[in-house]
Amino acid sequence: MKKTILLTVLVLNGLTSFAQSNDEKNIKLFYKKALTESKCYTWLEYLSNDIGSRLSGSPSAAAAIQYTKHQLETLGLDKVYLQEVMVPHWVRGEKEAAYILDNKIKTVVPICALGGSVATAKTGLTAEVVEVQGIDELKTLGDKVKGKIVFFNRPMNPENIETFTSYGACVDQRFAGAKEAAKFGAVGTIVRSMNLRLDDFPHTGAQSYGDLPKEQYIPTAAISTNGAELLSKSLKVNPALKFYFKQSCETLPDVLSYNVIGELTGTVTPENIIVVGGHLDSWDLADGSHDDGAGVVQSMEVVRILKNLNYKPKNTIRAVLFMNEENGGKGGAKYEEVAKQNKENHILAVESDSGGFTPRGFSIQADDANFKKIQGFKDFFEPYLVHSFTIGHAGSDIDHLTSKTIVKAGLKPDSQRYFDYHHAANDKFDAINKRELELGAATMTSLIYLIDQTGIILPTAN
Amino acid sequence: MKKTILLTVLVLNGLTSFAQSNDEKNIKLFYKKALTESKCYTWLEYLSNDIGSRLSGSPSAAAAIQYTKHQLETLGLDKVYLQEVMVPHWVRGEKEAAYILDNKIKTVVPICALGGSVATAKTGLTAEVVEVQGIDELKTLGDKVKGKIVFFNRPMNPENIETFTSYGACVDQRFAGAKEAAKFGAVGTIVRSMNLRLDDFPHTGAQSYGDLPKEQYIPTAAISTNGAELLSKSLKVNPALKFYFKQSCETLPDVLSYNVIGELTGTVTPENIIVVGGHLDSWDLADGSHDDGAGVVQSMEVVRILKNLNYKPKNTIRAVLFMNEENGGKGGAKYEEVAKQNKENHILAVESDSGGFTPRGFSIQADDANFKKIQGFKDFFEPYLVHSFTIGHAGSDIDHLTSKTIVKAGLKPDSQRYFDYHHAANDKFDAINKRELELGAATMTSLIYLIDQTGIILPTAN
Repeated sequence: MKKTILLTVLVLNGLTSFAQSNDEKNIKLFYKKALTESKCYTWLEYLSNDIGSRLSGSPSAAAAIQYTKHQLETLGLDKVYLQEVMVPHWVRGEKEAAYILDNKIKTVVPICALGGSVATAKTGLTAEVVEVQGIDELKTLGDKVKGKIVFFNRPMNPENIETFTSYGACVDQRFAGAKEAAKFGAVGTIVRSMNLRLDDFPHTGAQSYGDLPKEQYIPTAAISTNGAELLSKSLKVNPALKFYFKQSCETLPDVLSYNVIGELTGTVTPENIIVVGGHLDSWDLADGSHDDGAGVVQSMEVVRILKNLNYKPKNTIRAVLFMNEENGGKGGAKYEEVAKQNKENHILAVESDSGGFTPRGFSIQADDANFKKIQGFKDFFEPYLVHSFTIGHAGSDIDHLTSKTIVKAGLKPDSQRYFDYHHAANDKFDAINKRELELGAATMTSLIYLIDQTGIILPTAN
Repeated sequence: MKKTILLTVLVLNGLTSFAQSNDEKNIKLFYKKALTESKCYTWLEYLSNDIGSRLSGSPSAAAAIQYTKHQLETLGLDKVYLQEVMVPHWVRGEKEAAYILDNKIKTVVPICALGGSVATAKTGLTAEVVEVQGIDELKTLGDKVKGKIVFFNRPMNPENIETFTSYGACVDQRFAGAKEAAKFGAVGTIVRSMNLRLDDFPHTGAQSYGDLPKEQYIPTAAISTNGAELLSKSLKVNPALKFYFKQSCETLPDVLSYNVIGELTGTVTPENIIVVGGHLDSWDLADGSHDDGAGVVQSMEVVRILKNLNYKPKNTIRAVLFMNEENGGKGGAKYEEVAKQNKENHILAVESDSGGFTPRGFSIQADDANFKKIQGFKDFFEPYLVHSFTIGHAGSDIDHLTSKTIVKAGLKPDSQRYFDYHHAANDKFDAINKRELELGAATMTSLIYLIDQTGIILPTAN
């Protein structure tokens, strides 16, 4: 008996090490193809420089849908199609204006309306300012903000190594600040940009009035970090100063738009689906090269590499370019709705929506068994300096996927520079490094390959 | 007896975990101080934007010496001083000119003289071109290059994850190409810039004629990668085309210059010295913000953090800002010469000369025992995403240190973008990210602290 067991172990070991060596070779090939012949940088150049910003409902978002669909069609995938989705259509209108009015001296500061905000009166809005560090402090002030502009000025904490941690601890004042301030009778809100640097770029982003009646909506805008510092200092000297801003944004009727999908159909269990995606929409202030042009072209690159290598996936592998992540999430929700209708079985969803920087690892949403399984892949990634596999949020678009057996993984690039560009006018193609972008695509390809080969661990039936 | 052993183990374990927890706290503090109050970004802004390029022997190199000495003096260190060193003084002269001359059509291409090169005749140099992939191919051609310009066009290999590997495999054609081509009667050499991107920046760098008699020196220049691609394509169509270039660089008499040194004197074994350094000189085409303004200000930041925390080092800790790394290495050699004269005992040397990007780890020169010791620190660095501790070259300046017991460590930042800027006109302050720079300083501080606390492992006496 002992002998038999020993033999089995040896054979298994032999098989394992053969398989590993083969996987290592394939992964090496993915990186090689990404670094030597990728199309993702060229695709992004076109998306950014020729099409430009791609806010949901805009003509350029429509152009991006046609462009990426066409590019996917050139790859020889098994299916390329559009998935209809109705999306909100918010427009900024003419460029905002703002100044600090301090003893009749006007100091112009850079602002931009937050996505979904209402306009000010055509003549603008002037009011005294109450500075707070967040919604909690606002609540302690209560009616004292009545008739005033609430200035949310909590900065992102520079001490965190992962900048997304600092973003997560701050973004409530942008997303819900106006709604909360309106409840106490504030007439507008100004929010410090979610940016760790001191500079002159205002950073837009989604905000929501929640259940507030429409007549209570108040205009809300982001101010650059330098502008926020100046306003705060000026308020310390003269708490009675006023702030003026004018914006003419509005929400138009919803628009028909699309998710773009390219598919390599599975050859063994085609009913099991692996998704890799990013979001095709961007904010309107720049090209959205990092957010999320990068994720879009990396996802396209994943299927390009696999197809180019004539890889026959066991499971169906889909690149999904989601529409409307930024201000509604309608694309992600629609994808899940259709998946449910079709009773599709998603086993893995990978999203890249943290910028096109050097990949460091994955942020994983999975049960213990599958998390350990993915951690077990660490050695495969070590030669590529991909080292960080942690439990955490994987991606906004794939958040919508609710299958019980699904494993989700968000590509985790180096995060130091992300908020320099996020939702601001400098998120442009020149902020992209070709190799960093390509390494991200290869890293996603490798994880998808490993899961396609070995499957996920299904929960034990009770 | 069994009981006693058990007790000892427990007590030791208790001590170890107490010590570790204290070290963890201190390292956390180093990162916090770097990310919230560092001076390194401000210092670099001044070095780059107010002083500018700092080629050895130039007035701006002299200004940088005075500035950094003064800044170190403000930190309240135990000693700040200059160390005299004679350095070469090469000057570029007026801006170079070059074009491809193809059937009387002139196409201008961007070039720059390599450091140490001689000038062309005042009217420039025109000759036919022989393209080679490196010195080996040159040698097979031999006298066929007589009277011609040799064009070294081996590109950096994009497949390597670490870009320095690709640099190391290419740089011989820049450093020794002219010397080798001159031996076969070539009249000049043009070298493809050491750059993984295709762009219009020529990248300069050191070259040496070695033992060649002076009358055999030929002019040599780098051409931008786009220029190299164009020249190569044009040669395929018309191998008889000519290349024209003109440069007026020259080598002037050596100049007195200085290493800048700031010291925290050891409180237990002051005779044991830990060095942390970068090089103060840069090439002349830009500010040298990454190469190596970053390493300079990070080294200054290390001693600033330690002093600011009132840390009493066991060993002497020196920030050394080396002069003349780029074209001579005289500063590093002088430092070692003086150290030998003074019979100083260096135990650790840390250098930052790979750019101010997100730190990934250290490249270590040490014996097995000390390498394992440093690898044992890995857990301390994990929260800061510093994960790569490998055997490799540590730094050009600290290369000169020859003490048998010394451990050397080169800070290893993310390398993807380094060669976009290296020795080119775009190595400027706007290519620096404040947080990435600061993280590098904190990472060096942490390693130095750990070695200062625990020492290095001395070789067993035989």
